Amino acid sequence: MGLAIMCSGGDAPGMNPAIKKFVDYVYKSHQIPYFIYDGLEGLIDGNIKQAQHHDVAGILHNGGAIIGSSRSKRFYDYKYRKIAFENLNKYGITGLVVLGGDGSYNALERLNSEFGIDCIGIPSTIDNDIYGTEYCLGVDTALNVIRSAVDNIRDTASTFKRAFVVEVMGRECGYLAAVTALSSGAEICVIPEMCFNKDIAGYTLKKEVKAGRRYILAIAAEGCNRTQEIKEWLEKDIGMETRITVLGHIQRGGNPTVKDRMMAFEFVVRGIDLLRSKQKVHHAIGYQKGEFIAMDIHEVNDGKYTIPSEITRDLHFLD
Amino acid sequence: MGLAIMCSGGDAPGMNPAIKKFVDYVYKSHQIPYFIYDGLEGLIDGNIKQAQHHDVAGILHNGGAIIGSSRSKRFYDYKYRKIAFENLNKYGITGLVVLGGDGSYNALERLNSEFGIDCIGIPSTIDNDIYGTEYCLGVDTALNVIRSAVDNIRDTASTFKRAFVVEVMGRECGYLAAVTALSSGAEICVIPEMCFNKDIAGYTLKKEVKAGRRYILAIAAEGCNRTQEIKEWLEKDIGMETRITVLGHIQRGGNPTVKDRMMAFEFVVRGIDLLRSKQKVHHAIGYQKGEFIAMDIHEVNDGKYTIPSEITRDLHFLD
Amino acid sequence: MGLAIMCSGGDAPGMNPAIKKFVDYVYKSHQIPYFIYDGLEGLIDGNIKQAQHHDVAGILHNGGAIIGSSRSKRFYDYKYRKIAFENLNKYGITGLVVLGGDGSYNALERLNSEFGIDCIGIPSTIDNDIYGTEYCLGVDTALNVIRSAVDNIRDTASTFKRAFVVEVMGRECGYLAAVTALSSGAEICVIPEMCFNKDIAGYTLKKEVKAGRRYILAIAAEGCNRTQEIKEWLEKDIGMETRITVLGHIQRGGNPTVKDRMMAFEFVVRGIDLLRSKQKVHHAIGYQKGEFIAMDIHEVNDGKYTIPSEITRDLHFLD
Amino acid sequence: MGLAIMCSGGDAPGMNPAIKKFVDYVYKSHQIPYFIYDGLEGLIDGNIKQAQHHDVAGILHNGGAIIGSSRSKRFYDYKYRKIAFENLNKYGITGLVVLGGDGSYNALERLNSEFGIDCIGIPSTIDNDIYGTEYCLGVDTALNVIRSAVDNIRDTASTFKRAFVVEVMGRECGYLAAVTALSSGAEICVIPEMCFNKDIAGYTLKKEVKAGRRYILAIAAEGCNRTQEIKEWLEKDIGMETRITVLGHIQRGGNPTVKDRMMAFEFVVRGIDLLRSKQKVHHAIGYQKGEFIAMDIHEVNDGKYTIPSEITRDLHFLD
Repeated sequence: MGLAIMCSGGDAPGMNPAIKKFVDYVYKSHQIPYFIYDGLEGLIDGNIKQAQHHDVAGILHNGGAIIGSSRSKRFYDYKYRKIAFENLNKYGITGLVVLGGDGSYNALERLNSEFGIDCIGIPSTIDNDIYGTEYCLGVDTALNVIRSAVDNIRDTASTFKRAFVVEVMGRECGYLAAVTALSSGAEICVIPEMCFNKDIAGYTLKKEVKAGRRYILAIAAEGCNRTQEIKEWLEKDIGMETRITVLGHIQRGGNPTVKDRMMAFEFVVRGIDLLRSKQKVHHAIGYQKGEFIAMDIHEVNDGKYTIPSEITRDLHFLD
Repeated sequence: MGLAIMCSGGDAPGMNPAIKKFVDYVYKSHQIPYFIYDGLEGLIDGNIKQAQHHDVAGILHNGGAIIGSSRSKRFYDYKYRKIAFENLNKYGITGLVVLGGDGSYNALERLNSEFGIDCIGIPSTIDNDIYGTEYCLGVDTALNVIRSAVDNIRDTASTFKRAFVVEVMGRECGYLAAVTALSSGAEICVIPEMCFNKDIAGYTLKKEVKAGRRYILAIAAEGCNRTQEIKEWLEKDIGMETRITVLGHIQRGGNPTVKDRMMAFEFVVRGIDLLRSKQKVHHAIGYQKGEFIAMDIHEVNDGKYTIPSEITRDLHFLD
Repeated sequence: MGLAIMCSGGDAPGMNPAIKKFVDYVYKSHQIPYFIYDGLEGLIDGNIKQAQHHDVAGILHNGGAIIGSSRSKRFYDYKYRKIAFENLNKYGITGLVVLGGDGSYNALERLNSEFGIDCIGIPSTIDNDIYGTEYCLGVDTALNVIRSAVDNIRDTASTFKRAFVVEVMGRECGYLAAVTALSSGAEICVIPEMCFNKDIAGYTLKKEVKAGRRYILAIAAEGCNRTQEIKEWLEKDIGMETRITVLGHIQRGGNPTVKDRMMAFEFVVRGIDLLRSKQKVHHAIGYQKGEFIAMDIHEVNDGKYTIPSEITRDLHFLD
Repeated sequence: MGLAIMCSGGDAPGMNPAIKKFVDYVYKSHQIPYFIYDGLEGLIDGNIKQAQHHDVAGILHNGGAIIGSSRSKRFYDYKYRKIAFENLNKYGITGLVVLGGDGSYNALERLNSEFGIDCIGIPSTIDNDIYGTEYCLGVDTALNVIRSAVDNIRDTASTFKRAFVVEVMGRECGYLAAVTALSSGAEICVIPEMCFNKDIAGYTLKKEVKAGRRYILAIAAEGCNRTQEIKEWLEKDIGMETRITVLGHIQRGGNPTVKDRMMAFEFVVRGIDLLRSKQKVHHAIGYQKGEFIAMDIHEVNDGKYTIPSEITRDLHFLD
């Protein structure tokens, strides 16, 4: 039986440890592991090969994904999905593990419902925005990369009596921004999930600036699109020279943390075990309350992730 | 009402974020936070002062603990425990939060049973060896410091066709060693909780060395006391030049990871909430299956931590 | 005799080690060290105090500057310069060490020519754009912070078949960009000092992309203002999806590298020795061909820094 | 004309950037680059192949050396040296670049004098102990790895009122220890090149400990063999609980710093230029006072490196 692994959509640190575990564990299970290179685009183009142990030697500490990833418009067209299926068929691949986010899960659902391919989705996105799982692969590494950048920015902010607005990734989800704000002791956090009240925050801040506060650190989720607005407010209303830093793609890279390596292993092992034990598999692996679970992939696609209330609760620092 | 915080025993990254949260949250709860400096020794010597917000500004990213820690022999003597109690009394301190490990919890139990001081233990030790909690403060930072060291050692090992035995901390507990071995893809892991079978491992390794394996990485828990033995076995039986690296105290330091900062906050908030809500508190906070719990501190002291079976299961790589 | 230290203009990692050495070495020379807080603004406002050893304990590994910095418009007005001089006088300060860049040196020249204050300038700017010295404090740390960011970006670029334009600091000077491009193996480097020929570069790149090149890394100096233009060219002409990352203020922060610590010590010791040995000091310390030198500060202000030819020579990678 | 590159002896960060530059620059010079794998052992065994561009893609940020290294006893025997020469001959290799330290240079001298092979030695050892050059490849990375370890140790030392003796590498040379002691603000430094006077240091330290000093940091060069002695002295005479940390092989690994990458490029370019321009080359490249020089390799082998006086001068902190 052939089992294949593929990345889809944005890359996330932890994908390489997942890929390594996939190869090792599939061989250990006496089956044949395949790589699909460059995501759905590669699947359509037949960019597939049998994986070997030496392909995955020494990759645990590399960010990104050695098998590449992509976003695919062609896949929306049935004609190309059929080609994709035929490519899997050609290699005798009956089960597919995909590392990716929301969009990728939609693709999986199609391959399963239209062609009966057994599918496992492993939540892999630094945005942490997938329904049904508390944790997505890559988040811990991204958070620590951001921490290190924010530590640097605080150095220069405190030297200069300055405010900084640091914009972090997360698409429509404020998870990265919220956890960054809490863990770095930021004064302001602006995320899509919560209303940020400039009047309340401004009242406290002005008092503190008067009393000698040297710097203000604001974390803004990219999904809010308010970075520039917050900067202008800090300059005009609060009266502090302000700079913007958009962290950008440095957040996607980096040596995976121990947590991302361990989660990668667990996600993959659960996925492969499921593929081997059941007849019809169309599931996404999730992590909830310390346990790994398997949810129907339709259900995941239909749900909407919300940030845990413990996190949003603590964000009212300025009220 | 006065509430005090103290560290006891070995230090752990994450203690400073816990101390900062303690001060902020106690003030927010309209009570008065106190520092006890230098652990039980400082408590006996009356080294206590009211904490201010500015004491904890800018400490989130520092390893160690700004209020110091100690191990105390005097505390075993009732005479000194009585002095300790009187010192708490003098400041009107009715509740005590202790960041520490097993030994510290014993001290807490005494202060509670003999003098009625309300006590909260927060599991803080990179050894991760406390009963009733899956996670102790400092472990995530320690694991990532070790990861970085092991990445460096692998560079030199692979250049040189060499084996390395890396000894990691953990006292009687093999948790750090086990997770390090898994997450760094080590070939060998020797921990107190499992029998390491040299015959089985040797059979596989010799075959692989013959087939061209360039290096061997062995992780040994300090609690096994077998580091030298493993080195000699690798040299004589497996036939590879071998070096030992004892990582030592670099494992205790470092900028706390995002996880250790967030866990520190949660542990402390739970502890203070408990102190405020109940009359008689003699509890240790724990983390189990994604939830924070409070256990009777006697129970924790009587129990014995065991490594989760998912981890030991995966360690049989060479069988 | 009183000697004072002050930062001026943008901060640079290495300022704190310089400040620590200043305090230690001035005391060792049996004189009294003073801090001027918050740059020229603080000097005008009389924000001055005698420095103590404990002020500089444990600061070697912090970025930024514990005594703050500023840019000052008031200082252009003679009235405020006179106040500044009187403030120095009040404390018996006869010599002044300034950590800063070009602008700061101009201020020093005024204080010296108008009021006879002995002045030492220590080149401190990550832009590395000061005439008469090959090295400015902070450059090595900034380069290594950038390296780490570029390593992360390469992870994600190679996964995704993408081009990245990374914009780095340096004002009018391309030093940071040039060294980053060389040391990270970038394909493209755009700096103010050199003409970047899109035709030549494009010819080679298109050939390589056709032959399978997975990603393109372009480093652009902020001083060129061509980041957006390069992105559009890469997308339209070269045909690769392209992302921009503006590294921003993370480049100014961070734990000073060993080189920046050692250079800080040497710069400061040379400066203080000069202040003590001569009657009229109006000099900037520089580093040239492995030696520390003292140049007339007028001369430095009049000169213009140029990037060494060994560096620009090697940048013609695509010709 | 074929030119080969080889590593010999202990590995050093920066070797991979040197290897990459070698391949790129030799091809650019219209000649053929060869790899000799696993040092002199590989040379004797004929482990040689033509290098390709793709062999060196993406290796700039890896520690160690992708072509391996070794120490060879066989090479002392003329019989094997002759085989080594014949292997070079077989591939038409007329010039050889060796990355290594003292021992490697001896080997080069033999190949040159006995068989007329043109030879270039590039000083590559974290010990920084080669005559005729101020800088050896790998030193800057090693120093920054040590800095990070010492920062961690200081966290735990200051928490605990403890002394630490940190033993660093360097064989007979105290350079790493001396620069580490200065740049980390250590209280004690013990190196082979200087007498460490326990009476003088002890007098000051005891006074400071009495006055409240919380920790002592001692840096000891491995070449002194006094680590244990210093520990016992700190415990018995100074009266502080003391721990030893032997940093070991983590010092040899790690992502090469920008300086080590740039120095690697320059060393290699100079070496290849020399091989191409002269008829008889038996030289080591060195770096002195900001310039790259070429010295006769005999001269280098006969000389003895000494630490610059600026460094030893500053080490008398406790006198």
